[in-house]
Amino acid sequence: MFKHQIRIAYRDVTVGNHVYYARYLDLLEIVRNEFFRTLGHPLLQLQEQGIIFPVVECSLRCHAAARYDDLLDIETSVTNLGRVQFTLGYEVKRGDVLLVTASTRHAATTMEERPTKMPTGLFEALKKETEGHAPSCPSV
Amino acid sequence: MFKHQIRIAYRDVTVGNHVYYARYLDLLEIVRNEFFRTLGHPLLQLQEQGIIFPVVECSLRCHAAARYDDLLDIETSVTNLGRVQFTLGYEVKRGDVLLVTASTRHAATTMEERPTKMPTGLFEALKKETEGHAPSCPSV
Amino acid sequence: MFKHQIRIAYRDVTVGNHVYYARYLDLLEIVRNEFFRTLGHPLLQLQEQGIIFPVVECSLRCHAAARYDDLLDIETSVTNLGRVQFTLGYEVKRGDVLLVTASTRHAATTMEERPTKMPTGLFEALKKETEGHAPSCPSV
Amino acid sequence: MFKHQIRIAYRDVTVGNHVYYARYLDLLEIVRNEFFRTLGHPLLQLQEQGIIFPVVECSLRCHAAARYDDLLDIETSVTNLGRVQFTLGYEVKRGDVLLVTASTRHAATTMEERPTKMPTGLFEALKKETEGHAPSCPSV
Repeated sequence: MFKHQIRIAYRDVTVGNHVYYARYLDLLEIVRNEFFRTLGHPLLQLQEQGIIFPVVECSLRCHAAARYDDLLDIETSVTNLGRVQFTLGYEVKRGDVLLVTASTRHAATTMEERPTKMPTGLFEALKKETEGHAPSCPSV
Repeated sequence: MFKHQIRIAYRDVTVGNHVYYARYLDLLEIVRNEFFRTLGHPLLQLQEQGIIFPVVECSLRCHAAARYDDLLDIETSVTNLGRVQFTLGYEVKRGDVLLVTASTRHAATTMEERPTKMPTGLFEALKKETEGHAPSCPSV
Repeated sequence: MFKHQIRIAYRDVTVGNHVYYARYLDLLEIVRNEFFRTLGHPLLQLQEQGIIFPVVECSLRCHAAARYDDLLDIETSVTNLGRVQFTLGYEVKRGDVLLVTASTRHAATTMEERPTKMPTGLFEALKKETEGHAPSCPSV
Repeated sequence: MFKHQIRIAYRDVTVGNHVYYARYLDLLEIVRNEFFRTLGHPLLQLQEQGIIFPVVECSLRCHAAARYDDLLDIETSVTNLGRVQFTLGYEVKRGDVLLVTASTRHAATTMEERPTKMPTGLFEALKKETEGHAPSCPSV
């Protein structure tokens, strides 16, 4: 379970001072990016090797609204793993309050967007992250 | 089935010239807004009456990438309707090519974000939109 | 003077129901894109010929706030023109009310971001747009 | 001189892997927000007291492009200070390389967007930040 903190800005909220729904997906990318860096496989390095991981499916469920200046904890974990695709689950919390659950499914592709296998080192690193905990986030 | 065209801008795309996944949700809002206006129930007017329709759940599935300057057709229809909640399905197309399917579930709430029933006039207008066609979009 | 209409969405506004300042720059791109298409030189076509026009400088002045669902008229004109750089001025209005004035200065570059001369046909088309009117927008 | 680090994400960049110009303004808000917090006057707290600081003017000058996954240092300082308005200057750097200079002018207003004087405590705190250094950023 990887955790990253993000502060909500005016740019993220709309009328009524709640985070605009699409902005959550923007935030998830930040968390994903740091998760891969922490794993030892920064997405930029993978991109430089010719492999990217576009989102092919995602879902979002909003239980309560995040507000301007909230400091959110966003947790992510690998909920499904293959050689070509993987799914991440996310929980967005303000303190102990669960605000949003989400998931993103990614396909490994070349820069020309052809499906490809992910590097073995990355697969092994992601596999370690899936062991020993039952994912609580809904899979896509 | 309501249809609206949107042109993709540089702001919508990222490295590799494909639309950034969260941007699709931004585009869906534009379509929704025009759909309600066409129904005779502009969302602004409903907001001025104290009723808003925040997204409580959404999903997105990307089949192929949209690119800079693409002129997309986005179709929406009501796939589920209650007095307090409704779900819209979407298909994003470039010509005949289906790029993205999506759905958004909305709850009618007061400005203080308490659930409320939608006005009868709106319910009837949405109901007409659900008649006579089987929705092809996945419900959330 | 080229004019284009844009509808403000929830994604564009923040707490207090006014358009977030950075969003105006997003809107200006939409207008620019349509302006070049109308000139007969779509930016996509120029990009495919290896020439892009990144913003090297811009300014924004907000006189009054735009709101959710406002239908804005955005006017643009060429306020300065060289072979390698040009400046556009913008006026954002709601009906007769001037809300925002802005300008963007662009450099013609190759895809590798080296300065280059713009095609003669484009230069001539832009030149026609500068004739016969004194620009009212502040140049950058 | 206040300094804050921000990592560039895929959401911030466009075709050609450079940061989309409007996104810099989004990033400046993050820095501003942390600057006021560090001063002991969080913008949220001021908002709760009924005072906000919308941008009334801003400018941006791009010297070189920021890229995906760049870790940028953004410095800000008070370049002009009155009881009702103030201007911040910014420098965006990647290591020692200056990428962008910018400025934002803000007006203190009530929630109803009427001009007002800022609280004395805030004025004094901002004044301290203007002393003893000549601003290098262009004022708006």
